[in-house]
Amino acid sequence: MNYELFMGEALAEAQLAAGRGERPVAAVAVVDEAMVARAHDRMEESNDPTAHAVIGALRETARRLGRTRLADATIFTTQEPCPMCVGALMEADIETLVYAVANSVDGAAGTVVQLAQHPALPRRIKVVSGIRQDEAAELFAGVLSG
Amino acid sequence: MNYELFMGEALAEAQLAAGRGERPVAAVAVVDEAMVARAHDRMEESNDPTAHAVIGALRETARRLGRTRLADATIFTTQEPCPMCVGALMEADIETLVYAVANSVDGAAGTVVQLAQHPALPRRIKVVSGIRQDEAAELFAGVLSG
Repeated sequence: MNYELFMGEALAEAQLAAGRGERPVAAVAVVDEAMVARAHDRMEESNDPTAHAVIGALRETARRLGRTRLADATIFTTQEPCPMCVGALMEADIETLVYAVANSVDGAAGTVVQLAQHPALPRRIKVVSGIRQDEAAELFAGVLSG
Repeated sequence: MNYELFMGEALAEAQLAAGRGERPVAAVAVVDEAMVARAHDRMEESNDPTAHAVIGALRETARRLGRTRLADATIFTTQEPCPMCVGALMEADIETLVYAVANSVDGAAGTVVQLAQHPALPRRIKVVSGIRQDEAAELFAGVLSG
Protein backbone atom coordinates (compact mmCIF):
# COMPACT_ATOMS: atom_id res chain seq x y z
CA MET A 1 0.00 0.00 0.00
CA ASN A 2 1.36 3.41 -1.00
CA TYR A 3 0.68 5.37 2.17
CA GLU A 4 2.07 8.63 0.79
CA LEU A 5 -0.14 8.47 -2.29
CA PHE A 6 -3.41 7.99 -0.42
CA MET A 7 -2.44 10.51 2.24
CA GLY A 8 -1.97 12.94 -0.63
CA GLU A 9 -5.62 12.43 -1.54
CA ALA A 10 -6.62 13.15 2.06
CA LEU A 11 -4.44 16.28 2.13
CA ALA A 12 -6.06 17.58 -1.06
CA GLU A 13 -9.50 17.01 0.48
CA ALA A 14 -8.40 18.79 3.68
CA GLN A 15 -7.30 21.77 1.62
CA LEU A 16 -10.79 21.84 0.14
CA ALA A 17 -12.28 21.86 3.65
CA ALA A 18 -10.12 24.82 4.67
CA GLY A 19 -11.34 26.75 1.65
CA ARG A 20 -14.91 26.18 2.80
CA GLY A 21 -14.39 27.47 6.33
CA GLU A 22 -14.16 24.02 7.89
CA ARG A 23 -11.33 22.57 9.96
CA PRO A 24 -8.63 21.39 7.52
CA VAL A 25 -9.17 17.72 8.27
CA ALA A 26 -10.09 15.00 5.81
CA ALA A 27 -10.16 11.22 5.47
CA VAL A 28 -10.17 8.71 2.66
CA ALA A 29 -11.03 5.02 2.67
CA VAL A 30 -9.04 2.53 0.61
CA VAL A 31 -10.06 -1.04 -0.29
CA ASP A 32 -7.90 -3.27 -2.51
CA GLU A 33 -5.57 -0.37 -3.30
CA ALA A 34 -8.46 1.76 -4.56
CA MET A 35 -10.02 4.81 -2.91
CA VAL A 36 -13.70 4.14 -2.20
CA ALA A 37 -14.62 7.24 -0.18
CA ARG A 38 -13.33 10.68 0.72
CA ALA A 39 -14.74 13.18 3.19
CA HIS A 40 -13.76 16.30 5.04
CA ASP A 41 -14.98 17.94 8.24
CA ARG A 42 -18.43 19.40 7.63
CA MET A 43 -19.55 20.65 11.07
CA GLU A 44 -20.07 24.21 9.86
CA GLU A 45 -21.81 23.42 6.59
CA SER A 46 -24.04 20.69 7.99
CA ASN A 47 -24.58 22.09 11.51
CA ASP A 48 -23.82 18.60 12.82
CA PRO A 49 -21.40 18.10 15.74
CA THR A 50 -20.70 14.54 14.56
CA ALA A 51 -19.75 15.51 10.99
CA HIS A 52 -16.04 14.79 11.33
CA ALA A 53 -14.07 13.55 8.34
CA VAL A 54 -13.63 9.99 9.61
CA ILE A 55 -17.36 9.64 10.33
CA GLY A 56 -18.13 10.90 6.84
CA ALA A 57 -15.67 8.53 5.20
CA LEU A 58 -17.04 5.53 7.10
CA ARG A 59 -20.64 6.36 6.24
CA GLU A 60 -19.76 6.80 2.58
CA THR A 61 -17.76 3.56 2.50
CA ALA A 62 -20.63 1.61 4.08
CA ARG A 63 -23.05 3.10 1.59
CA ARG A 64 -20.87 2.26 -1.40
CA LEU A 65 -20.02 -1.26 -0.28
CA GLY A 66 -23.52 -2.01 0.99
CA ARG A 67 -22.33 -3.25 4.39
CA THR A 68 -21.41 -1.92 7.82
CA ARG A 69 -18.46 -4.25 8.48
CA LEU A 70 -15.45 -2.72 6.76
CA ALA A 71 -12.47 -4.74 7.98
CA ASP A 72 -10.93 -4.65 4.50
CA ALA A 73 -10.88 -0.84 4.39
CA THR A 74 -7.88 1.21 5.49
CA ILE A 75 -8.67 4.73 6.68
CA PHE A 76 -6.23 7.57 5.96
CA THR A 77 -6.77 10.80 7.84
CA THR A 78 -4.77 14.01 7.98
CA GLN A 79 -5.09 14.31 11.78
CA GLU A 80 -5.07 11.74 14.56
CA PRO A 81 -8.76 11.06 15.27
CA CYS A 82 -10.70 12.15 18.36
CA PRO A 83 -12.35 9.59 20.67
CA MET A 84 -15.61 9.69 18.68
CA CYS A 85 -13.81 8.87 15.45
CA VAL A 86 -11.61 6.10 16.88
CA GLY A 87 -14.78 4.62 18.38
CA ALA A 88 -16.45 4.82 14.97
CA LEU A 89 -13.51 2.97 13.37
CA MET A 90 -14.11 0.20 15.91
CA GLU A 91 -17.83 0.08 15.15
CA ALA A 92 -16.97 -0.42 11.47
CA ASP A 93 -14.36 -3.11 12.26
CA ILE A 94 -11.58 -1.06 10.66
CA GLU A 95 -8.25 -2.84 11.20
CA THR A 96 -5.77 -0.21 10.02
CA LEU A 97 -5.67 3.57 10.53
CA VAL A 98 -3.05 5.79 8.90
CA TYR A 99 -2.78 9.40 10.04
CA ALA A 100 -0.51 12.34 9.26
CA VAL A 101 -0.21 14.65 12.24
CA ALA A 102 -0.83 14.00 15.94
CA ASN A 103 -3.76 15.65 17.74
CA SER A 104 -2.58 17.12 21.02
CA VAL A 105 -6.08 18.19 22.12
CA ASP A 106 -8.00 14.93 22.07
CA GLY A 107 -6.06 12.48 19.93
CA ALA A 108 -7.36 9.02 20.78
CA ALA A 109 -4.82 6.85 19.00
CA GLY A 110 -2.25 7.33 21.73
CA THR A 111 -1.43 11.01 21.97
CA VAL A 112 -4.00 12.05 24.60
CA VAL A 113 -5.82 8.77 25.22
CA GLN A 114 -5.15 5.30 23.87
CA LEU A 115 -8.43 3.94 22.58
CA ALA A 116 -7.15 2.34 19.38
CA GLN A 117 -5.28 -0.34 21.28
CA HIS A 118 -7.01 -0.32 24.65
CA PRO A 119 -6.62 -3.73 26.30
CA ALA A 120 -10.19 -3.76 27.70
CA LEU A 121 -12.00 -2.97 24.46
CA PRO A 122 -13.13 -5.74 22.11
CA ARG A 123 -11.17 -4.48 19.07
CA ARG A 124 -7.63 -3.21 18.40
CA ILE A 125 -6.70 -0.97 15.50
CA LYS A 126 -3.25 -0.97 13.94
CA VAL A 127 -2.04 2.64 13.73
CA VAL A 128 0.51 4.07 11.29
CA SER A 129 1.39 7.69 12.07
CA GLY A 130 3.49 10.53 10.71
CA ILE A 131 2.78 10.01 6.99
CA ARG A 132 3.25 13.46 5.35
CA GLN A 133 2.80 15.06 8.74
CA ASP A 134 4.53 18.33 7.83
CA GLU A 135 2.02 19.01 5.08
CA ALA A 136 -0.92 18.29 7.37
CA ALA A 137 0.54 20.57 10.05
CA GLU A 138 0.99 23.32 7.49
CA LEU A 139 -2.71 23.18 6.68
CA PHE A 140 -3.53 23.95 10.31
CA ALA A 141 -0.94 26.71 10.40
CA GLY A 142 -2.50 28.24 7.29
CA VAL A 143 -5.95 28.30 8.86
CA LEU A 144 -4.66 29.86 12.06
CA SER A 145 -2.75 32.57 10.24
CA GLY A 146 -5.43 33.16 7.60
CA MET B 1 -35.50 16.95 36.12
CA ASN B 2 -37.66 13.84 36.18
CA TYR B 3 -35.11 11.22 35.14
CA GLU B 4 -37.60 8.34 35.26
CA LEU B 5 -40.05 10.13 32.98
CA PHE B 6 -37.56 10.90 30.23
CA MET B 7 -35.95 7.46 30.50
CA GLY B 8 -39.43 6.10 29.93
CA GLU B 9 -39.49 7.91 26.59
CA ALA B 10 -36.14 6.36 25.70
CA LEU B 11 -37.36 2.90 26.72
CA ALA B 12 -40.43 3.25 24.50
CA GLU B 13 -38.20 4.24 21.59
CA ALA B 14 -35.90 1.27 22.30
CA GLN B 15 -38.91 -1.04 22.18
CA LEU B 16 -39.69 0.38 18.76
CA ALA B 17 -36.12 -0.36 17.63
CA ALA B 18 -36.40 -3.98 18.75
CA GLY B 19 -39.58 -4.37 16.73
CA ARG B 20 -37.69 -3.20 13.66
CA GLY B 21 -34.83 -5.68 13.98
CA GLU B 22 -32.41 -3.15 15.48
CA ARG B 23 -30.57 -3.35 18.79
CA PRO B 24 -33.01 -2.26 21.53
CA VAL B 25 -31.14 0.94 22.29
CA ALA B 26 -32.52 4.46 22.13
CA ALA B 27 -31.73 7.99 23.28
CA VAL B 28 -33.66 11.17 23.89
CA ALA B 29 -32.42 14.74 24.30
CA VAL B 30 -34.01 17.09 26.83
CA VAL B 31 -33.65 20.87 26.98
CA ASP B 32 -35.48 22.99 29.57
CA GLU B 33 -37.49 19.97 30.74
CA ALA B 34 -38.76 19.32 27.22
CA MET B 35 -37.80 16.49 24.87
CA VAL B 36 -36.27 17.91 21.69
CA ALA B 37 -35.10 14.72 19.96
CA ARG B 38 -35.49 10.96 20.09
CA ALA B 39 -33.63 8.30 18.15
CA HIS B 40 -32.95 4.59 18.17
CA ASP B 41 -30.20 2.43 16.75
CA ARG B 42 -30.58 2.30 12.97
CA MET B 43 -27.50 0.39 11.78
CA GLU B 44 -29.58 -2.26 10.01
CA GLU B 45 -32.11 0.03 8.39
CA SER B 46 -29.58 2.64 7.30
CA ASN B 47 -26.58 0.39 6.61
CA ASP B 48 -24.49 2.87 8.58
CA PRO B 49 -22.02 1.66 11.24
CA THR B 50 -22.24 5.04 13.00
CA ALA B 51 -26.04 5.08 13.28
CA HIS B 52 -26.18 4.55 17.03
CA ALA B 53 -28.99 6.07 19.06
CA VAL B 54 -26.86 8.74 20.75
CA ILE B 55 -25.42 9.89 17.42
CA GLY B 56 -28.92 10.13 15.99
CA ALA B 57 -30.22 12.09 18.97
CA LEU B 58 -27.32 14.55 18.82
CA ARG B 59 -27.71 15.14 15.09
CA GLU B 60 -31.45 15.69 15.47
CA THR B 61 -30.95 18.05 18.42
CA ALA B 62 -28.40 20.12 16.50
CA ARG B 63 -30.74 20.30 13.52
CA ARG B 64 -33.69 21.41 15.65
CA LEU B 65 -31.77 23.96 17.69
CA GLY B 66 -29.72 25.22 14.75
CA ARG B 67 -26.39 24.88 16.54
CA THR B 68 -23.70 22.29 17.24
CA ARG B 69 -22.95 23.30 20.83
CA LEU B 70 -25.55 21.62 23.02
CA ALA B 71 -24.38 22.17 26.58
CA ASP B 72 -27.95 22.79 27.74
CA ALA B 73 -29.14 19.40 26.51
CA THR B 74 -29.26 16.33 28.73
CA ILE B 75 -28.99 13.00 26.92
CA PHE B 76 -30.92 9.99 28.21
CA THR B 77 -30.00 6.61 26.79
CA THR B 78 -31.14 3.10 27.63
CA GLN B 79 -27.60 1.68 27.53
CA GLU B 80 -24.26 3.07 28.60
CA PRO B 81 -22.72 4.50 25.41
CA CYS B 82 -19.79 3.06 23.49
CA PRO B 83 -16.56 5.07 22.96
CA MET B 84 -17.88 6.58 19.71
CA CYS B 85 -21.00 7.86 21.42
CA VAL B 86 -19.27 9.25 24.51
CA GLY B 87 -16.87 10.99 22.14
CA ALA B 88 -19.83 12.43 20.24
CA LEU B 89 -21.32 13.77 23.48
CA MET B 90 -18.02 15.59 24.03
CA GLU B 91 -18.03 17.03 20.51
CA ALA B 92 -21.49 18.45 21.20
CA ASP B 93 -20.46 19.84 24.61
CA ILE B 94 -23.06 17.72 26.42
CA GLU B 95 -22.65 18.19 30.18
CA THR B 96 -24.96 15.49 31.54
CA LEU B 97 -25.59 11.91 30.43
CA VAL B 98 -28.23 9.69 32.04
CA TYR B 99 -28.24 5.99 31.19
CA ALA B 100 -30.23 2.96 32.29
CA VAL B 101 -28.14 -0.20 32.03
CA ALA B 102 -24.36 -0.64 31.96
CA ASN B 103 -22.63 -1.87 28.81
CA SER B 104 -20.17 -4.64 29.68
CA VAL B 105 -18.81 -4.95 26.13
CA ASP B 106 -17.59 -1.44 25.40
CA GLY B 107 -19.24 0.90 27.88
CA ALA B 108 -17.20 4.11 27.85
CA ALA B 109 -18.73 5.91 30.82
CA GLY B 110 -16.76 3.87 33.31
CA THR B 111 -17.73 0.23 32.86
CA VAL B 112 -15.10 -0.84 30.31
CA VAL B 113 -13.25 2.42 29.74
CA GLN B 114 -13.63 5.80 31.42
CA LEU B 115 -13.86 8.40 28.68
CA ALA B 116 -16.64 10.51 30.16
CA GLN B 117 -14.42 11.74 32.95
CA HIS B 118 -10.96 11.12 31.61
CA PRO B 119 -8.48 13.53 33.21
CA ALA B 120 -6.51 14.12 29.98
CA LEU B 121 -9.47 15.00 27.73
CA PRO B 122 -10.68 18.60 27.41
CA ARG B 123 -14.25 17.88 28.61
CA ARG B 124 -15.89 15.97 31.46
CA ILE B 125 -19.42 14.64 31.37
CA LYS B 126 -21.52 14.16 34.49
CA VAL B 127 -22.97 10.64 34.41
CA VAL B 128 -26.14 9.42 36.15
CA SER B 129 -26.59 5.65 35.84
CA GLY B 130 -29.08 2.95 36.75
CA ILE B 131 -32.29 4.85 35.96
CA ARG B 132 -34.91 2.15 35.12
CA GLN B 133 -32.09 -0.27 34.44
CA ASP B 134 -34.20 -3.40 34.92
CA GLU B 135 -36.53 -2.39 32.13
CA ALA B 136 -33.63 -1.65 29.78
CA ALA B 137 -32.03 -5.01 30.61
CA GLU B 138 -35.34 -6.77 29.91
CA LEU B 139 -35.37 -5.31 26.41
CA PHE B 140 -32.02 -6.97 25.69
CA ALA B 141 -33.21 -10.24 27.23
CA GLY B 142 -36.29 -10.11 24.99
CA VAL B 143 -34.19 -9.68 21.87
CA LEU B 144 -31.85 -12.51 22.83
CA SER B 145 -34.69 -14.93 23.56
CA GLY B 146 -36.89 -13.80 20.68
